Amino acid sequence: MVSETKLIVRYVETDRMGVTHHSNYLVWYEQARTELTKKLGTSYGELEEMGFLSPVLSVHTEYLRPCTYDDEIVVKCCLTKATYSQMEFSYQVYKNGESTPINRGSSRHAWVDKETFRPISIKRKAPQLYELLCNAVEQIEE
Amino acid sequence: MVSETKLIVRYVETDRMGVTHHSNYLVWYEQARTELTKKLGTSYGELEEMGFLSPVLSVHTEYLRPCTYDDEIVVKCCLTKATYSQMEFSYQVYKNGESTPINRGSSRHAWVDKETFRPISIKRKAPQLYELLCNAVEQIEE
Amino acid sequence: MVSETKLIVRYVETDRMGVTHHSNYLVWYEQARTELTKKLGTSYGELEEMGFLSPVLSVHTEYLRPCTYDDEIVVKCCLTKATYSQMEFSYQVYKNGESTPINRGSSRHAWVDKETFRPISIKRKAPQLYELLCNAVEQIEE
Amino acid sequence: MVSETKLIVRYVETDRMGVTHHSNYLVWYEQARTELTKKLGTSYGELEEMGFLSPVLSVHTEYLRPCTYDDEIVVKCCLTKATYSQMEFSYQVYKNGESTPINRGSSRHAWVDKETFRPISIKRKAPQLYELLCNAVEQIEE
Repeated sequence: MVSETKLIVRYVETDRMGVTHHSNYLVWYEQARTELTKKLGTSYGELEEMGFLSPVLSVHTEYLRPCTYDDEIVVKCCLTKATYSQMEFSYQVYKNGESTPINRGSSRHAWVDKETFRPISIKRKAPQLYELLCNAVEQIEE
Repeated sequence: MVSETKLIVRYVETDRMGVTHHSNYLVWYEQARTELTKKLGTSYGELEEMGFLSPVLSVHTEYLRPCTYDDEIVVKCCLTKATYSQMEFSYQVYKNGESTPINRGSSRHAWVDKETFRPISIKRKAPQLYELLCNAVEQIEE
Repeated sequence: MVSETKLIVRYVETDRMGVTHHSNYLVWYEQARTELTKKLGTSYGELEEMGFLSPVLSVHTEYLRPCTYDDEIVVKCCLTKATYSQMEFSYQVYKNGESTPINRGSSRHAWVDKETFRPISIKRKAPQLYELLCNAVEQIEE
Repeated sequence: MVSETKLIVRYVETDRMGVTHHSNYLVWYEQARTELTKKLGTSYGELEEMGFLSPVLSVHTEYLRPCTYDDEIVVKCCLTKATYSQMEFSYQVYKNGESTPINRGSSRHAWVDKETFRPISIKRKAPQLYELLCNAVEQIEE
């Protein structure tokens, strides 16, 4: 399953180099995960209410070409790995209508308890969610 | 009591106009409140632990002159009003070494319960804090 | 003319109070101006290419009720004043489907030359744009 | 040469998970590069005035432990590679007084012309700067 999130670059997201500041891509990745989670039939807000958080463990991101204010952006996102304790996502960012990405990246996330921040097994705590995630995993060739 | 907070404009805080994006001044105001609260002998983190929050009710801000990346900034902040249920702060933002502000503003805050978000009387809940605040209020001519 | 901008609260826009951080409303106002400008048949990017900038002179904003992650938000925006040298906008922010705003505000903007940052008369420099703006002004009862 | 940048976590930098949002570490890395550049006897603003930009090509970041509002943070930063056309930096983020990092990362940057965004040889364009950079490179064991 691949989600496509559309957004328009905000003025505040540019810097005095004239282009989008590189930190915003991590925010766009997050927005893409929100949308992918909904496409899976749940939502991150719901997962929080169930008592789970999935904090970021690592991010890798490559900036291929710049974009700037008012550009229409599409973020493609998919889950590339789902284990008892972790998830991995992959991202490709496009200017709308283009076929080569301007940015690509990946992130790794833990499953932790909302109160204690301790690692949990999502398979044990929420077997249906775990199955949902496993079925959504895409095989990506690097 | 007036606090002085020093900061250096971050690259991310600029936009493609070449200057600091106007939304950042609200963040700097908040940083100034953090420092004023410490100067009062407490801290906002401590107040949260005591079960209080002081969400923003309103902000007014005037942009007089721009600033940009790597500029050294001083934010002067004082409490201008403290009642049972609210606080008001005043801000003046300077480029380091200058005597006329580049920005000035004010903000109004409520006292609410951390769990319920309902208004509380800080005088009743934390009389010592209330006295501290009343003593710190500065008379400002507009 | 009134524009309606839809957005979904991003996780990064929340703070540890559990709600949207107050500085983000200024960013949403800006996004709303972008959309209003397009509805007028032009765009802020185009205005910049013509050599004009409209930096913010002042903002007033009132926080009536909180919102949080994944809430669907509608920002209504209109131009309330257009002179040779300045513009004023008014904003009302709603949770989708609700009829009472969670936030309202206003902002005042100058017209300046892109290179010199000096004030310009938009009526003289771009009479068609000026007329467009004058016709778009809404009468708002406070 | 290793720079140490001190900062205090801002309220706006937290999210409703209660901890610092992961995108802010990229902003802190940038602040650390600003300080390292000054320690080298120049500044990024100066480099921009000379006609150079060093946009980010890639970032890798690992989140080891969380931090939150008002925590005192130290970002250690050093240059790990300097070639004609690129730079690589390494970062370690600590809570003040602790010896094990809460985050570590690296970033790769290009040298480009400010007007054209085309790659340049910093050795040819600014040989003294290039020498300065080469002398500042630290050998890091991974």
